[in-house]
Amino acid sequence: MPFELSKEYFTQLEKAIEAQDEAFIQESMNELYPADIANVLYELDDDDARYILGLLDKETGAEVVSNLNAYWRADFLKDFDSAQIAQFINYIDSDDAADILNEQPGKVREEVIALLENREKARYIIDLLHYEEDTAGGLMAKELVKCNINWTVVQCVDEIRRQAEKVDRFNSVYVIDDQGILKGRVSLKKIVLSKANTRVSDIYDDDVVSVESHQLAEEVADIMQRYDLESIPVVNVRGKLLGRITIDDIVDVITEQADLDRQAMTGLSGDTEDDDTVLDSVKARLPWLTIGVAGSLIAARFMGLFENEIILAPALAFFVTLIGGTGGNVGIQSSSVILQSLANKSVLETSTVQRLIRVLLIGLLNGFVLSCIVFAFNIAFGTDLRLAMVVSVALISVVLVASFTGTVTPLILDKFGVNPAVASGPFITTANDILGIAVYFMTARLLL
Amino acid sequence: MPFELSKEYFTQLEKAIEAQDEAFIQESMNELYPADIANVLYELDDDDARYILGLLDKETGAEVVSNLNAYWRADFLKDFDSAQIAQFINYIDSDDAADILNEQPGKVREEVIALLENREKARYIIDLLHYEEDTAGGLMAKELVKCNINWTVVQCVDEIRRQAEKVDRFNSVYVIDDQGILKGRVSLKKIVLSKANTRVSDIYDDDVVSVESHQLAEEVADIMQRYDLESIPVVNVRGKLLGRITIDDIVDVITEQADLDRQAMTGLSGDTEDDDTVLDSVKARLPWLTIGVAGSLIAARFMGLFENEIILAPALAFFVTLIGGTGGNVGIQSSSVILQSLANKSVLETSTVQRLIRVLLIGLLNGFVLSCIVFAFNIAFGTDLRLAMVVSVALISVVLVASFTGTVTPLILDKFGVNPAVASGPFITTANDILGIAVYFMTARLLL
Repeated sequence: MPFELSKEYFTQLEKAIEAQDEAFIQESMNELYPADIANVLYELDDDDARYILGLLDKETGAEVVSNLNAYWRADFLKDFDSAQIAQFINYIDSDDAADILNEQPGKVREEVIALLENREKARYIIDLLHYEEDTAGGLMAKELVKCNINWTVVQCVDEIRRQAEKVDRFNSVYVIDDQGILKGRVSLKKIVLSKANTRVSDIYDDDVVSVESHQLAEEVADIMQRYDLESIPVVNVRGKLLGRITIDDIVDVITEQADLDRQAMTGLSGDTEDDDTVLDSVKARLPWLTIGVAGSLIAARFMGLFENEIILAPALAFFVTLIGGTGGNVGIQSSSVILQSLANKSVLETSTVQRLIRVLLIGLLNGFVLSCIVFAFNIAFGTDLRLAMVVSVALISVVLVASFTGTVTPLILDKFGVNPAVASGPFITTANDILGIAVYFMTARLLL
Repeated sequence: MPFELSKEYFTQLEKAIEAQDEAFIQESMNELYPADIANVLYELDDDDARYILGLLDKETGAEVVSNLNAYWRADFLKDFDSAQIAQFINYIDSDDAADILNEQPGKVREEVIALLENREKARYIIDLLHYEEDTAGGLMAKELVKCNINWTVVQCVDEIRRQAEKVDRFNSVYVIDDQGILKGRVSLKKIVLSKANTRVSDIYDDDVVSVESHQLAEEVADIMQRYDLESIPVVNVRGKLLGRITIDDIVDVITEQADLDRQAMTGLSGDTEDDDTVLDSVKARLPWLTIGVAGSLIAARFMGLFENEIILAPALAFFVTLIGGTGGNVGIQSSSVILQSLANKSVLETSTVQRLIRVLLIGLLNGFVLSCIVFAFNIAFGTDLRLAMVVSVALISVVLVASFTGTVTPLILDKFGVNPAVASGPFITTANDILGIAVYFMTARLLL
């Protein structure tokens, strides 16, 4: 059963740590999965966490380390010497091992690799360190089970036996030729059901989706999601089998991307967590707020040009929020729809012109309905008729302008390789604020 | 290799459809995976799509249908009679089959189930239709391979042989007792490596994470992600094995949740797609825009109370956007951070009071920096000193208020079971607009 950490459990554990009650700690950790132990460690101070980790058997300890959050781990491992880190790495798959070492300074990295007992793993890790983190090469593990296309099933089973310790979970064996080129795969199910002397070439499936090591993590995620894959082989440009990526790593890629998009949309820079220090939080939030403030100050200067209008009709000022706010909301909605279609990549791109016509049509309808509501309200509350007209005309114009910018901005950002989610944030809101005020006061000058 | 649909390919295909060139169509479809064929069908009109589907062999056709997007499929299948739908269902796993039938009217559902040749599948589907869509029961498939704990490995292999046709991909066999209670699992790897007369009870792993059928899809996603699982068994309250959920369905759950959050944050109702009709888009967008407009009209009435202040100092109006906009941005940032921690559920909850103190501290620092920037700007551009002071004091107050509401609103919504992502949308922006203006003009009345 999945484990929930309760306050009671935690108090008990802290007492046990203080009393150095090793029996209790080991027994209670035995009931937990490594991912849960990792969650327990986050709540302890570093000394206590190190103490508990030391009480676990080596393999469990290593699994806990590989389950830790990267930021927390980078810091936590600083207090371990290279030999201790190498102890963990011996039990960790090459992909996670490379990630852990990538978080450490170059000196530690070299020392740990030199200290590894398992020389094959050392070679794997050195190889993986070459790849960019957000590519297929950076995600893959070198551990996999492969067999030669000319083998029989019994040779294949022997190979599985040899590799079984190193490779945890797999439901198929990759098939390669003498040059190491990926030819296909044969499922464990087929191996179980085939006679010992059957040739692999007679039962293997030659239609296997693979990715090249340079492909981006997001592409890999798209492909695995589209074809419902649990793992995918990674090859080089010549088709040679290099490693494999399992779906659990891709789930993490998808979740991280969603988090980053959300942060970009709400104007937070970098990877922000609820438990960052106050100063880190200020640093993450201030840049976008400053841009927003700068935009509003420009808007304020701009309104200064219309001081006479405001003196003539102070009520004009009452609707500044209405115009700016609605523009902001419409802009965000439009960009959100575009973001979604950029994320899901519709196969045949609708042409930009078609899309804009559609968006402007939606804007026209929305703007019309909203203008009517506002007009009715203004008449009901005795606003001057001419002012009511100015507000409604400006509102419909602003909705149109914001629909346009909300649609175009993410498309342009995407074209220039910037995360288009940024466009849903304070940037587009501020742009629409300024545009809205411009439209509003121009209309006022024309009509009043 | 993953397939990209090009305009050229599509033109060729349309020509072939017109010429009824079945050989070309079948050959080109043979090169595609079902998920790709589904993408091709979306781009065709319904008659052409039906024509192509008819040319595929039955099994591929069924796989294409199960890959189709639910909304598109519900509509597309309306033109098929129940016997044709039953043909597809025969080849589709029970979980997807139940989803497809759930999209259809009750009459079609009953007819299709009655027409199924495979009576076991019919029973599976009837069983699955009872579960709520967003629970473990609604996600699970009944197809799985299980063996009795008292069996030997050779009996287990026989069972795999019997089930092999029905169950596509699995890397472990679930172990049950005579009452059908889940006892654990044994990996295919172990089966391959064990002697034929080994007892399952000697090699199985009794430590298996399972979920109960009533648990929510989101909980299942959390658990599978936490423990890096590729599939998870579903049991009833007594521990009886009911079915299993595979990670591909969970990946879809995660992606959908991220999309829904994003839409909620940007004030779109329901499931919005870029290619909805114009009217659907208007309906999805209008409700939140109207709420925003209503809020701004309240703000306008409120500002009406301060008409005298505006007549005395028209420049007061220039900074309404600054105050309202910054309040909105700060509110969204604060709620986004809370959203993230609600989504990732930190294990030991920080107490609400601690959190608020932290948030207010961040707000104070951000507000102070922004106020200084604005004050410097105002002095540089010759704004009246007292007005400059009003603006800066109001700004720092607004940042504090918005930090507070942005933090508290999602927490309250979450407590009442409303998707807290809604709070990042127009709702909180509008609330902060009104609050901001209130704070601003009160300050003005006090200080001017």
